[in-house]
Amino acid sequence: MSLLDKLDAVAATRKALLPEDVEVFGTPVDAVYSSTEAKIGDRRILFLGTNNYLGLTFAPECLQAAHAAIDSEGTGTTGSRMANGSYSGHRALERELADFYRCHSCIVFTTGYQANLATISGLAGAGDVVLIDGDSHASIYDGCRLSGAEIIRFRHNDMVDLEKRLRRLGERSSSTLIIVEGIYSMLGDRAPLADVVKLKNAYNSTLLLDEAHSLGVLGTTGQGLVEETGLIEEVDFITGTFSKSLGGIGGYCVSKHPQLDQLRYVSRPYIFTASPTPATIASTRAALKLLREGSELRRQLWRNVHQLYSRLDELGYDLGPEPSPVIAAILKTPQQALALWKGLLDHGIYVNLVLPPATPEGNSLVRCSVSAVHSSEQLDYVGKAFAELREAISQ
Amino acid sequence: MSLLDKLDAVAATRKALLPEDVEVFGTPVDAVYSSTEAKIGDRRILFLGTNNYLGLTFAPECLQAAHAAIDSEGTGTTGSRMANGSYSGHRALERELADFYRCHSCIVFTTGYQANLATISGLAGAGDVVLIDGDSHASIYDGCRLSGAEIIRFRHNDMVDLEKRLRRLGERSSSTLIIVEGIYSMLGDRAPLADVVKLKNAYNSTLLLDEAHSLGVLGTTGQGLVEETGLIEEVDFITGTFSKSLGGIGGYCVSKHPQLDQLRYVSRPYIFTASPTPATIASTRAALKLLREGSELRRQLWRNVHQLYSRLDELGYDLGPEPSPVIAAILKTPQQALALWKGLLDHGIYVNLVLPPATPEGNSLVRCSVSAVHSSEQLDYVGKAFAELREAISQ
Repeated sequence: MSLLDKLDAVAATRKALLPEDVEVFGTPVDAVYSSTEAKIGDRRILFLGTNNYLGLTFAPECLQAAHAAIDSEGTGTTGSRMANGSYSGHRALERELADFYRCHSCIVFTTGYQANLATISGLAGAGDVVLIDGDSHASIYDGCRLSGAEIIRFRHNDMVDLEKRLRRLGERSSSTLIIVEGIYSMLGDRAPLADVVKLKNAYNSTLLLDEAHSLGVLGTTGQGLVEETGLIEEVDFITGTFSKSLGGIGGYCVSKHPQLDQLRYVSRPYIFTASPTPATIASTRAALKLLREGSELRRQLWRNVHQLYSRLDELGYDLGPEPSPVIAAILKTPQQALALWKGLLDHGIYVNLVLPPATPEGNSLVRCSVSAVHSSEQLDYVGKAFAELREAISQ
Repeated sequence: MSLLDKLDAVAATRKALLPEDVEVFGTPVDAVYSSTEAKIGDRRILFLGTNNYLGLTFAPECLQAAHAAIDSEGTGTTGSRMANGSYSGHRALERELADFYRCHSCIVFTTGYQANLATISGLAGAGDVVLIDGDSHASIYDGCRLSGAEIIRFRHNDMVDLEKRLRRLGERSSSTLIIVEGIYSMLGDRAPLADVVKLKNAYNSTLLLDEAHSLGVLGTTGQGLVEETGLIEEVDFITGTFSKSLGGIGGYCVSKHPQLDQLRYVSRPYIFTASPTPATIASTRAALKLLREGSELRRQLWRNVHQLYSRLDELGYDLGPEPSPVIAAILKTPQQALALWKGLLDHGIYVNLVLPPATPEGNSLVRCSVSAVHSSEQLDYVGKAFAELREAISQ
């Protein structure tokens, strides 16, 4: 089959499954009014699918910082940190993230996807093993694939399975990178970090924790699961993203190990990519300051989480195992999920539709992302829409 | 060897080769004054290593567009196009790029690195073949690796070798993706596109051309090598970047094949990454307009290229095979290259040092990037510095 024929087959699959009257993936957003409201077609809709957990994309401090950076440093750096130099803002953000985590070292990357790609493929290589949770984000899978290491999956959050696989590795467990996530992006549940740490120590492995969805969300100062569990000293490498709670684009890796600094010289997704724009660096620095000081924002976020999670639970929706800003309704069939997604859009509520094979265990998901700046009235309205649609989709 | 021990070994290698008094890779840039001038430590330096070919990072139209986008759409989109919606600016940029190339389809990516990763790994897969030039950029190598296809390299710009490898593939040549570049990033030479096209047609393969360094540089309207050679109809897929001539961050793929649109549904580096910030999309759209209208900028760029290339050639430097905005002086040893790089920095000129294994044939390079907005006086000064350093480094 030619390369183009394969893409024709993709089109045929999509056509069989999806409606033609609405673009389900990549839905056109015609204007943005605020962190929570936008225009789709001719109507005002509520954003309940973006990962704007603290609602900082329109924070005046972040807008102002971005404006100032554009004027002083221009629209882009036109090159990689390694070849074209390292601007002062980029270095300051690395120092501020290292300070935030009280870690020795930090590297900033141009996307969150590349943060995982660069860290994993820089740490592990041929002959090593990466031992990853079955529900890992695509960027973790792709980083593992790029690394050339042997990839072994353990069942999602299943510590018996993780230990079995570590035991089987024998001496190779000491050149094994275990990777888990603070909050998993599909069902919103946390990794059992204390148990993972025990196993990592018992088998002398290295542990990478991805806090993409937990940064700004968990812990008193918003560090993530490491802060909520008090286990930061036990985690070797932490990655995260700027495109969720921090409202920008990019990612980072922090570590207590000074060896992290060497990754700059060997990790191709870091070396061979242009560095983030001055505007993004500046808005991210301003957002990080708000995030650290944002305990009231976090309290509001969790009030919102509990309001929506308990309402959907009462309505009888099958939800992820614990409340979190990612609240996924699990549907039995893609058709049911599509009907719910479309029904919500008809009510002016824009959420994520996630279909197999992107989902755990072949389920179909309608995934909501709750923000600290959603109002209680907005979430009430969402609850009413889910209630109205409950019967329609169970038929 | 544990994962951390391997990084210690990297540190030891660097320490043996590089001086401790100056940071050669990731040199701190303390302030940016313009597209061509900056501050390193306590001195004003000339940027001659960034890929700001048209000098658009401070173009008033681009700054203004970025400012407006920040105010109207915020600092980031906080999600991927697929899951969190597709802003009007992102869609407009895709239409404008498709129009620029008079191609059917266009997809915009968050980095240029990810443009290659997403396009290659989306097009080719297990069982397919990717046939790439030996001097290909790291993003092409990484895209191939991620694809799972069989990777075969042909000798740089060697059409006899390319044909030999196509012939050996037999029937598999029809599921083969050939990848070449408009201008190669190391030595600044072009792919022999007419010959590549003949072979691609004779063997019924698919052709991807990366115009990262040639966009805005080659062709009457700046399309790149496809325009200079008049071969756009013969190329299946074109990728490029926003972080060089367009002064932003991101990348694109355009194609005459409508099948490109399907890549959105299968390509993981596209699906699972947050989309570019509104500011970047807006400044890139403004820059694309300037680039299309920028024939005078291109003429000035080429005047500058010829001025510097011929000066260094007269001085007896061993240069890449043809003049281009990437002008690389090829040195015999890393020590010579380092001495030249450091000597230029002492003269207030900041260029790229590229050492093996990142270089073709194990050479060491001091690589200059010429911009349309370098003045003739600035390039005169650069010529004088290279002249002064000529003897010092040949000893």
